[in-house]
Amino acid sequence: MLVFTNLKRALLALPVTVLALGFMSGEVRAEVSGETAYVLNTFSFLVHGFLVMFMAAGFAMLESGLVRSKNTATICLKNIALYSIAGIMFYLVGYNLMYVNVPEGGFMGAFELFYNPGEAELALLAAEEATVEQVKAVTDAGYSVASDWFFQMVFVATAASIVSGTVAERIKVWPFLIFVVVLSAIIYPIQASWVWGGGWLDAMGFSDFAGSTLVHSVGGWCALTGAIILGARTGKYGPDGRVNPIPGANMPLATLGTFILWFGWFGFNGGSQLALGSAADATMMSIVYVNTNIAAAGGVVAAMVLTQILYKKVDLSMALNGALAGLVAITAGPDLTNHFTSLIIGAVGGLLVVIFVPFLDKLKIDDVVGAISVHLVAGVWGTLCVGIFGSGTVVTQVIGIAAIGAFAIVASSIVWLILKATVGIRINEEDEANGSDMAECGMEAYPEFGRGSQTF
Amino acid sequence: MLVFTNLKRALLALPVTVLALGFMSGEVRAEVSGETAYVLNTFSFLVHGFLVMFMAAGFAMLESGLVRSKNTATICLKNIALYSIAGIMFYLVGYNLMYVNVPEGGFMGAFELFYNPGEAELALLAAEEATVEQVKAVTDAGYSVASDWFFQMVFVATAASIVSGTVAERIKVWPFLIFVVVLSAIIYPIQASWVWGGGWLDAMGFSDFAGSTLVHSVGGWCALTGAIILGARTGKYGPDGRVNPIPGANMPLATLGTFILWFGWFGFNGGSQLALGSAADATMMSIVYVNTNIAAAGGVVAAMVLTQILYKKVDLSMALNGALAGLVAITAGPDLTNHFTSLIIGAVGGLLVVIFVPFLDKLKIDDVVGAISVHLVAGVWGTLCVGIFGSGTVVTQVIGIAAIGAFAIVASSIVWLILKATVGIRINEEDEANGSDMAECGMEAYPEFGRGSQTF
Amino acid sequence: MLVFTNLKRALLALPVTVLALGFMSGEVRAEVSGETAYVLNTFSFLVHGFLVMFMAAGFAMLESGLVRSKNTATICLKNIALYSIAGIMFYLVGYNLMYVNVPEGGFMGAFELFYNPGEAELALLAAEEATVEQVKAVTDAGYSVASDWFFQMVFVATAASIVSGTVAERIKVWPFLIFVVVLSAIIYPIQASWVWGGGWLDAMGFSDFAGSTLVHSVGGWCALTGAIILGARTGKYGPDGRVNPIPGANMPLATLGTFILWFGWFGFNGGSQLALGSAADATMMSIVYVNTNIAAAGGVVAAMVLTQILYKKVDLSMALNGALAGLVAITAGPDLTNHFTSLIIGAVGGLLVVIFVPFLDKLKIDDVVGAISVHLVAGVWGTLCVGIFGSGTVVTQVIGIAAIGAFAIVASSIVWLILKATVGIRINEEDEANGSDMAECGMEAYPEFGRGSQTF
Repeated sequence: MLVFTNLKRALLALPVTVLALGFMSGEVRAEVSGETAYVLNTFSFLVHGFLVMFMAAGFAMLESGLVRSKNTATICLKNIALYSIAGIMFYLVGYNLMYVNVPEGGFMGAFELFYNPGEAELALLAAEEATVEQVKAVTDAGYSVASDWFFQMVFVATAASIVSGTVAERIKVWPFLIFVVVLSAIIYPIQASWVWGGGWLDAMGFSDFAGSTLVHSVGGWCALTGAIILGARTGKYGPDGRVNPIPGANMPLATLGTFILWFGWFGFNGGSQLALGSAADATMMSIVYVNTNIAAAGGVVAAMVLTQILYKKVDLSMALNGALAGLVAITAGPDLTNHFTSLIIGAVGGLLVVIFVPFLDKLKIDDVVGAISVHLVAGVWGTLCVGIFGSGTVVTQVIGIAAIGAFAIVASSIVWLILKATVGIRINEEDEANGSDMAECGMEAYPEFGRGSQTF
Repeated sequence: MLVFTNLKRALLALPVTVLALGFMSGEVRAEVSGETAYVLNTFSFLVHGFLVMFMAAGFAMLESGLVRSKNTATICLKNIALYSIAGIMFYLVGYNLMYVNVPEGGFMGAFELFYNPGEAELALLAAEEATVEQVKAVTDAGYSVASDWFFQMVFVATAASIVSGTVAERIKVWPFLIFVVVLSAIIYPIQASWVWGGGWLDAMGFSDFAGSTLVHSVGGWCALTGAIILGARTGKYGPDGRVNPIPGANMPLATLGTFILWFGWFGFNGGSQLALGSAADATMMSIVYVNTNIAAAGGVVAAMVLTQILYKKVDLSMALNGALAGLVAITAGPDLTNHFTSLIIGAVGGLLVVIFVPFLDKLKIDDVVGAISVHLVAGVWGTLCVGIFGSGTVVTQVIGIAAIGAFAIVASSIVWLILKATVGIRINEEDEANGSDMAECGMEAYPEFGRGSQTF
Repeated sequence: MLVFTNLKRALLALPVTVLALGFMSGEVRAEVSGETAYVLNTFSFLVHGFLVMFMAAGFAMLESGLVRSKNTATICLKNIALYSIAGIMFYLVGYNLMYVNVPEGGFMGAFELFYNPGEAELALLAAEEATVEQVKAVTDAGYSVASDWFFQMVFVATAASIVSGTVAERIKVWPFLIFVVVLSAIIYPIQASWVWGGGWLDAMGFSDFAGSTLVHSVGGWCALTGAIILGARTGKYGPDGRVNPIPGANMPLATLGTFILWFGWFGFNGGSQLALGSAADATMMSIVYVNTNIAAAGGVVAAMVLTQILYKKVDLSMALNGALAGLVAITAGPDLTNHFTSLIIGAVGGLLVVIFVPFLDKLKIDDVVGAISVHLVAGVWGTLCVGIFGSGTVVTQVIGIAAIGAFAIVASSIVWLILKATVGIRINEEDEANGSDMAECGMEAYPEFGRGSQTF
């Protein structure tokens, strides 16, 4: 066995060495030449991971723009807090529960504390003189476990972000954050293990490329149960069935948030190719980018056209939500090789939002930012599309949607109800009237702006 | 021929295999070892493409900041809509017209519907057992076609974004979007095929690295004809030649937009190296990044110094536009290896903006955000610089600038005039006074802010 | 020697060629096969560099959000100007002073004008027929010098950005920018050469992975001397020791700025691995990403919990600064392989901010955005942690902190005092009352918002 006296030299030398060895041994040995593939796969997770991480900023801006100014500081706080908590909980519990030792066809992984880098990786990093075996032990995994953790962690945070928008303007900060703890430590990882961890839904053939169901509909279901259990904002629904529009305070921020989300979605879907170490992977990743963009564009245009027809105006917030619905819809199957299908999938997503936002209002389900229509409805639609247009079957897709939906509804309802019964989840009426910012954060978001008091 | 029984193994094995074969066959065979280069080239398009995509957010914020609050929701809507439409049209028509079957020295590509992934790529992705030939058929192209489409698509959207700022605050939404349809489907692709598609200007030796002329001046010309045909905003020019300043409503957003554009410009120029598969490409790409940054910095400082001298104050909006002008100016030739030249090119760009913004006002050409000075004037300057400092000749550069300018002026004027004569392009006076937001979007951008009514 | 007749072919052929040669010559030759490593190392600098560049936008938004509206345009101007000036000065003087010909164990590099690409790189780019030697001459360096310049340049700008927040709302624009000239041309490069240039502190074993001390504490020390020499804002400290809170005008922008900084920090720390050309580098880079995120999350949660305990509210601005403090704290040693340590390091950073912000107010040191607590205090803490938990020793770390602190204090004080004695650094009282925007920029940041005059 080769032993190098200098780590850096050794690593640079490896591909050549091994190739030479491979040739000398008379057979083609692919495994260690995979070092370049390992680097590329890992870097793909990092790059796409930082894009998805930035979606936290996108949600923060979207929601900041769509709430009233008296609740804006609180929504900012909730967004940075939930991103932080989701990351910590996924580190403490979630990752292992989602990925480690999931039995084939099983229902969850390991209840073990702390994700940490693998032993092979630590050995490689600690070695002053890395051996070929040490490098091979690491590169055989295909990518650095830490890079995978990073990429998966930002997905959990996305699921949590979805909830915060719906329940804004009336929920208490700390109870909401406790919900995030449970969501990111338990609820999200368990159902995600069913598919991405190699559990029972994966064994059935259920397919969800980047999480229309696993991320978006789960966030959407939690938002829905939260909205129902929490109740609508005071004044949103009038006595005689009237729906009072409560416009958001800062539409450019909502627009910025949407653009950031769109930007981050290339990481969300593109990174979910999970590899960049071959021509096939790079090609498919490119197709995923193209489909992602086309579906979002289709969502925007469809939502604009429909609002123009229905209301004789083009509603900006519908156009923004149309983009997001197109993105959510394509997320289950952005690997379709016919781009026109993506255009249709995204466009239908945009139409669904325009239909479902007023429909939820009719049901008096008060969703401040439209997240249920965007993430749940378009998420279900997109997951079905994999059965209709893609590699899956409709029946299996429906089973997956239903199973994950049932689990998310039950689990989240239990958590919301326990929180409601114990610490309480709703701010009191006076605080709601004055805005949660003064009550919860002791500050105003825009202390110098405003036309004076705006009790909605 | 080797046939692998497992795609993933096969792809990982390829480099080794082929090297071994190459050696065995007694000659050096480079072609298939290009798989790593293919992956890197493709990933460069994706990474730089998502940076340029984010420029759509930059334009949206820049323009949101520089219009009045009563027109802010509309400008947000136009920005997300134009980005969507440009992408769809480039998918439907533009890409083929720009790139496919452009005759050598010709004037346009194919009028064919739908860009789609190439056959070789689809065959590779569909293969359960990919052959060496199948991989080679894909990697020989150098990069995934889908990644190139993505990268080129975001450039079209940039050209369209330029127009929206100039004609803001008085144009109707839908007619503007029809203009974007024609721009992104026809006008932009045809002239771009002359150079980047290998058409007649390319054959002449006209050089435009990343599009000072092909993207920025084209956007600028369309903005100029639009501004003239549309007319100035009511009240902008007083009876006795007075120019009434109309300050933007939200300068931090304009600043954010400029930073986002600067950030995205590393994708714009860096990605236009078009390859990352060799030491030479990576080195040149790095030089492009450095020049891009230095030129922008030069534009800021030059604009600041000149406004200080002229007006005894440092005008923030001029500093921002100075950055953009520096960026536009270096875009035609960011591959110069003497960075000092970039500093000069960018600084002159910054000076030009400070001179041309009031000059256009003298001509009563009302450009809300200064886009004509930034994208057209600095774009022409930058394209000339390739002749002065770089690889091109001044004569050829002038021919290219003039030809593309003439085409853009004529084509865009025809479209604007047809739109004006048919559906009309200008909102009525009452809507202009009240703001296009209520008229076109049925909402306010900042419903809770404001000192009350601000008729300009 | 092989001579190729076509550069592109030659470069693609290289890996294969050289491998074959290596094998033929009977020994393993790693050096030229490093071309892929060269490309990956270089691309890492570019990608991580553009992330750090975007931190300039983060600082601009953070500071825009935390100042009053009457000083917002000025802070935007200062941020884009300082980024530009830092880049130009690092090009003109700084890079050479920091890196070129630093004697082993020495105190600074070369006083030479102009950074420019290396001769080997220029020769490669100029060659029509690149030889193996020409490629090797470039790739032996490990990465493109231009990419390194880009990455290092954005670090200088970060140091300068730190200062602008502290001294906001009362400093004159041009004198501040002169300070930035000296900071980025002289102060920063000299002390950075002591460690990253291979100078005396590096020889001692002082360790600072990505700059808790070299970047953040240096910026913090300059901010501290500036705040003291400049004095507090009028009205900040009442006669009887009362501290008057002066709330920021736009908290969503401050939140956005924090998210952008967090996003950019993956470039700051991840790119400081300085290489991506091996499995070990990619693995360590991934661990750096994970630690960076966990530390920031720890900072947020710790700051939130402590403010809840102390004030019975969760202060949004403390949560934001907690994130930044966690990030600063982990920056000296994000390569720890036990993530739990990162959580602690970041959390303590968050606690320190909550303690030091009111403590500085007690000392009547007026820090508008809390930058001294974030960047100096947490920077010192993080640098110590490398001695406590990591590879360094506490004694050496203390020596480094003290030496760089002493240098930064003395050098910056001299510059501030000279500026104060000559051109003056503080705007006059009337301008301060009316806001620096009208005085310095001749414009308002939000001309249409506001409840009328707000003299604080």
